[in-house]
Amino acid sequence: MNSNLWLYIGIGCGLGSIAMALVYYRWVIRQEPGTEKAVQIASWIKDGASTYLKMLYRALIAVAMVLVIVLGIIFSGDPARPLHGVYTAAAFGFGALCSALAGWLGMSIAVKANVRTSTACGRSLGQGFNVAYKAGAVMGLAMVGVAVFGMSLLYLIFHDAEIVLGFSFGASSLALLAKAGGGIYTKTADIAADLTGKVELGIPEDDPRNPAVIADNVGDNVGDVAGMGADIFDSYVAATVASMLLGTSFAATGSIGMQYAILPLILCIVGIVSSLIGLQFVKVGPDGKPGKALNFGTVFSCVVFFVLATILFVVVNALAGETVFNYGALIATMSGLLISIIIGFTTDYFTNDEYRPVRNVAEISASGTGLTIITGFSHGLISIAPALIGIVIATLTSYFSAQAFGLPGIYGIGIAAVGMLSLTGIVVSNDAYGPIVDNAKGIAEMSGMSHEVVDTADVLDSAGNTAKAITKGFSISAAALTVLAMYAAYSEVIVKYSGGSFLMNLQDPIVLSGIFLGCIVPPLFSALTMLAVTRNAFTMIEEIRRQFKAEPGILAGTALPDYSRCVGIASLGALRALVFPALLAIVLPLVVGFILGPTALGGFLGGAIFIGVVFALLMSNAGGLWDNAKKYIEAGNCGGPGSEAHKAAVVGDTVGDPFKDTAGPSLNTLITVMSLVSSLFAPLIAQYHLFG
Amino acid sequence: MNSNLWLYIGIGCGLGSIAMALVYYRWVIRQEPGTEKAVQIASWIKDGASTYLKMLYRALIAVAMVLVIVLGIIFSGDPARPLHGVYTAAAFGFGALCSALAGWLGMSIAVKANVRTSTACGRSLGQGFNVAYKAGAVMGLAMVGVAVFGMSLLYLIFHDAEIVLGFSFGASSLALLAKAGGGIYTKTADIAADLTGKVELGIPEDDPRNPAVIADNVGDNVGDVAGMGADIFDSYVAATVASMLLGTSFAATGSIGMQYAILPLILCIVGIVSSLIGLQFVKVGPDGKPGKALNFGTVFSCVVFFVLATILFVVVNALAGETVFNYGALIATMSGLLISIIIGFTTDYFTNDEYRPVRNVAEISASGTGLTIITGFSHGLISIAPALIGIVIATLTSYFSAQAFGLPGIYGIGIAAVGMLSLTGIVVSNDAYGPIVDNAKGIAEMSGMSHEVVDTADVLDSAGNTAKAITKGFSISAAALTVLAMYAAYSEVIVKYSGGSFLMNLQDPIVLSGIFLGCIVPPLFSALTMLAVTRNAFTMIEEIRRQFKAEPGILAGTALPDYSRCVGIASLGALRALVFPALLAIVLPLVVGFILGPTALGGFLGGAIFIGVVFALLMSNAGGLWDNAKKYIEAGNCGGPGSEAHKAAVVGDTVGDPFKDTAGPSLNTLITVMSLVSSLFAPLIAQYHLFG
Repeated sequence: MNSNLWLYIGIGCGLGSIAMALVYYRWVIRQEPGTEKAVQIASWIKDGASTYLKMLYRALIAVAMVLVIVLGIIFSGDPARPLHGVYTAAAFGFGALCSALAGWLGMSIAVKANVRTSTACGRSLGQGFNVAYKAGAVMGLAMVGVAVFGMSLLYLIFHDAEIVLGFSFGASSLALLAKAGGGIYTKTADIAADLTGKVELGIPEDDPRNPAVIADNVGDNVGDVAGMGADIFDSYVAATVASMLLGTSFAATGSIGMQYAILPLILCIVGIVSSLIGLQFVKVGPDGKPGKALNFGTVFSCVVFFVLATILFVVVNALAGETVFNYGALIATMSGLLISIIIGFTTDYFTNDEYRPVRNVAEISASGTGLTIITGFSHGLISIAPALIGIVIATLTSYFSAQAFGLPGIYGIGIAAVGMLSLTGIVVSNDAYGPIVDNAKGIAEMSGMSHEVVDTADVLDSAGNTAKAITKGFSISAAALTVLAMYAAYSEVIVKYSGGSFLMNLQDPIVLSGIFLGCIVPPLFSALTMLAVTRNAFTMIEEIRRQFKAEPGILAGTALPDYSRCVGIASLGALRALVFPALLAIVLPLVVGFILGPTALGGFLGGAIFIGVVFALLMSNAGGLWDNAKKYIEAGNCGGPGSEAHKAAVVGDTVGDPFKDTAGPSLNTLITVMSLVSSLFAPLIAQYHLFG
Repeated sequence: MNSNLWLYIGIGCGLGSIAMALVYYRWVIRQEPGTEKAVQIASWIKDGASTYLKMLYRALIAVAMVLVIVLGIIFSGDPARPLHGVYTAAAFGFGALCSALAGWLGMSIAVKANVRTSTACGRSLGQGFNVAYKAGAVMGLAMVGVAVFGMSLLYLIFHDAEIVLGFSFGASSLALLAKAGGGIYTKTADIAADLTGKVELGIPEDDPRNPAVIADNVGDNVGDVAGMGADIFDSYVAATVASMLLGTSFAATGSIGMQYAILPLILCIVGIVSSLIGLQFVKVGPDGKPGKALNFGTVFSCVVFFVLATILFVVVNALAGETVFNYGALIATMSGLLISIIIGFTTDYFTNDEYRPVRNVAEISASGTGLTIITGFSHGLISIAPALIGIVIATLTSYFSAQAFGLPGIYGIGIAAVGMLSLTGIVVSNDAYGPIVDNAKGIAEMSGMSHEVVDTADVLDSAGNTAKAITKGFSISAAALTVLAMYAAYSEVIVKYSGGSFLMNLQDPIVLSGIFLGCIVPPLFSALTMLAVTRNAFTMIEEIRRQFKAEPGILAGTALPDYSRCVGIASLGALRALVFPALLAIVLPLVVGFILGPTALGGFLGGAIFIGVVFALLMSNAGGLWDNAKKYIEAGNCGGPGSEAHKAAVVGDTVGDPFKDTAGPSLNTLITVMSLVSSLFAPLIAQYHLFG
């Protein structure tokens, strides 16, 4: 099999996906932007988002440059590979650049699509949906496009998966900052806007008199579009690279052929094609149910992927006249994909108001806020179980099915993670749709569009919430399987460079100590980001009060508030708050590795993964549940808006917001970054460490 | 060295400790009971507690009998040890009996000491303290007494640590039910009393018109005296047995002498003597600070233990003319003890209103309930770090200090756990003091004693809270180290019976799957107990409303409410809610072990331990923090009682209550029971399992 051919296809496919994203981009901006007032509001949001993104990217460039230099120096020490440092550093920079580029493209279309979606809602639900969904697809396609393009190109040039690891680390470092920063930003603005607007003054959520309202709408974009996109992007790249590393490593020992090193990339290509096909079928039917359209797209792409991947295996093997691609790998891929879909829908049970958990919380809210919190938290705790059982099934199935067909079992786990993430294109499209319609609804309200338009936008918005919940469940499970694969890759690298066997024995006190230390990181990271949210919200609340006091015309509606100051506070606060948690993620694994040694670091990663996955599931699901319990009450149930139950549910939502949008989803990226740092530095840690 | 001599000393020392408990018992009941009204109220509490205990023990007898029969049958299959089943079953029954006996003794004095403490408070703070503390000591001394008596007796008869394991399992099973049941009971009553009394009717906390008020006071006893006592008792026994198992196992291979199998028991004896000495010095000084007296007792006993243990090692070695007890074991013991004290005091930082976390939460409460919850939860997340770092230090120090002196490192970890728990006598005394003074304050208020008496009782009560926080931090860390030792013991048993080597490799998908499955259990257990609390609280609230409606004289103060119905609801509800979680703890490890095999079970235990410790710390500390933030505001800070901040803090406390009193502390016992079940069944699991 000519592997270079596949790499050229990868480059072409990546570029094709980017081109398709640009086609959608052009289509969206050609849509009618709408009334002057709506355009004005949208431009404030756009400017706010640009302000934040500029500050973020400026900070990121500084961080990336430092890391490029550090990596360049550290990895140049090996006389056998004098240029390895330069290559790794370049790959890192390239990864960071690709991730930033995709995020920027997604954001820039989102802030243009929001107003066009509200305007299209004036024509029909279907048209509104179409604008928002195509804009979401820009993000999805751009993301998988740059990822596959970048990985194929690097592997074509260097034929070394360790260099591609540098690319992945670059993408993930950027993702961590974008995700956590966006998460802090969005909740800062949200809490400040709610506490001053809804609570203190009793004005509606998207009231233009509130100086924080633009920051709040910007937050949806930077948190949910740029942040979530970056999060899935980094799992996508990391899963592919981990499997490539495993493939390379097993191929080096002769136990499998070299074609398995690039099979992960080939599966990504099949995934992109399937997503592109699936996207064409996402249309709101005559029944007007956008949620159904979104879910149909995902399931349909899944079927397409299954068919295409099977054809690929059969055709390649038939053409070659031998088993080029073992069918064990196909089963492993499919088990990953299937389980990810199942986990996504299970998450829905805990966060959808059609089922018991959300209703239970809504009903109990009438009896007091304390019970809202305890009950929601308890259901969040229970929701951990099905996802973890799913991960266990995917792990065991992929491992043993690969093994049964003569492939290394651990390679099967890696391939299952790739399978889970193969449909990233369409999953991110669905997800980016959410904040766009959320914004569209806000703009429709703020610019005084008719009730029908606002209601139409609201229908689109509710569908976005379910898609979002499913994506989160999906991305957490995918991250879990990805880090398991990366974990295995870490071991392989350690074995390769230490020259001996490498064992992480649970009876070994060094490993146990590593695990306990690893258990500290995800809770600490969550706490730091959540405390940053409350701290920044307070700064913003003071600014809002100052503006109301200095210019009474604002409340009267005769003067405009200074939106940009709130945007500035949220932006600067988020970036400042990021420094320490991000350092934790990068520096702690190195400290543990270089001091306590590679086995302790293995334990450390393990501890961080176990606790990280558990907390990510708990926080995302409990947060989603509280959010929807509040919405369920607002829809007129359990006493309806204004009732005691509603007040309690609002508090539940305030608690849930930083859970589900700040701390919870950042944890995936946190554990991915920690795993990547460890694998990247494994060659050095294997040789230099104080103890262990 | 004559090991039988030490076992006789153990029996004597155990009986001596029980005798001393009885002496204190007699002293307490001879104190002046007080006014007729106070005695009347106390008798309601006493009756309520008896109702619950009778129901609990009846249920426990049923459970214990089933388990006795099951154990008897299962363990009789080995033709080489035909009577092993009978012995194990008998030891199990004996363990359950001892645990029940100690719990009953502690409870029965607590419900007599409460009214005597309030009355003594009328004379002086010092006298009030004395009565409550001596009553607490009854619990502490009875507990360690029966434990050391039981273990010494069984080992003397059978000379087989596996039989003593049965004793430990009996004690722990009972502890799990007592702890979780008590935790559900106490918060059911607390929430129902608060929601109807304080919130709906605006009557004070301990108002005799509230039908739930007696159930609430009973709750303090069954939750905090019987429950917490059982919790520490079970760690105490489990740590000792785990170390005995390790000692026996290493002695069998000839790597250490048989004296190390009973060294854990000898350390317990030294601990009892040290506690008895320490108890004599716990007196409130002329400055009137009961908190200082409690802490002084702990630290002083620690010093006594250090001196006595050192003398013991030196004298025994000198008398024998050779190294009977290796000094590595002494260092390991001391490292455990020291770290436990340090962790206890660190916990205090997060829950004491003199430091930043509590004040931060109190201050932020003025801005809304959501922020109270987020901030408190975040500080709880951070509080995990110092405790885990302490556990790591204790693990590494004890392992490597044992190894440096030529002992097996893992035995050092076991001995460190015993060291941590050696002062259980005085720690439980401090802890049982808390609910007694809490009750005393309630009785003083309800029976209309003077303001000075209530204030004196209040001073005693605040000191109890700090002691309680320290005990919880201490008991969680001790449980962590205990299960690590039990974990090692499990491996040893598996190795012994499978005849091969046994490896729990973190790269093995079976182990990883076990870990992920283990991660499910503690959150699920917490959720089930907390949901039971809210469910039962609702049943009770309905009953309270029914009583108010049926007899208007209750609210007017002319008719007495029917306290016993609320007591009955809390009792029955708690016991019913226990069945499923308790089954989880016992059955799940067996399912995993017999189906997925011993390595998966090893991973499963690991996962449960990591997540269990993290959640136990989070929930206990966040709960304690919210409780004290509320009290800090009630003391007149941040707006004082009745302010918005106070309302928010009350909600925080409502959330914190089931965190810290129901779910959090039960988790220690849960992981201990799971570890014990696994070790007990390890001989069978090693031989019979489907996969792995």
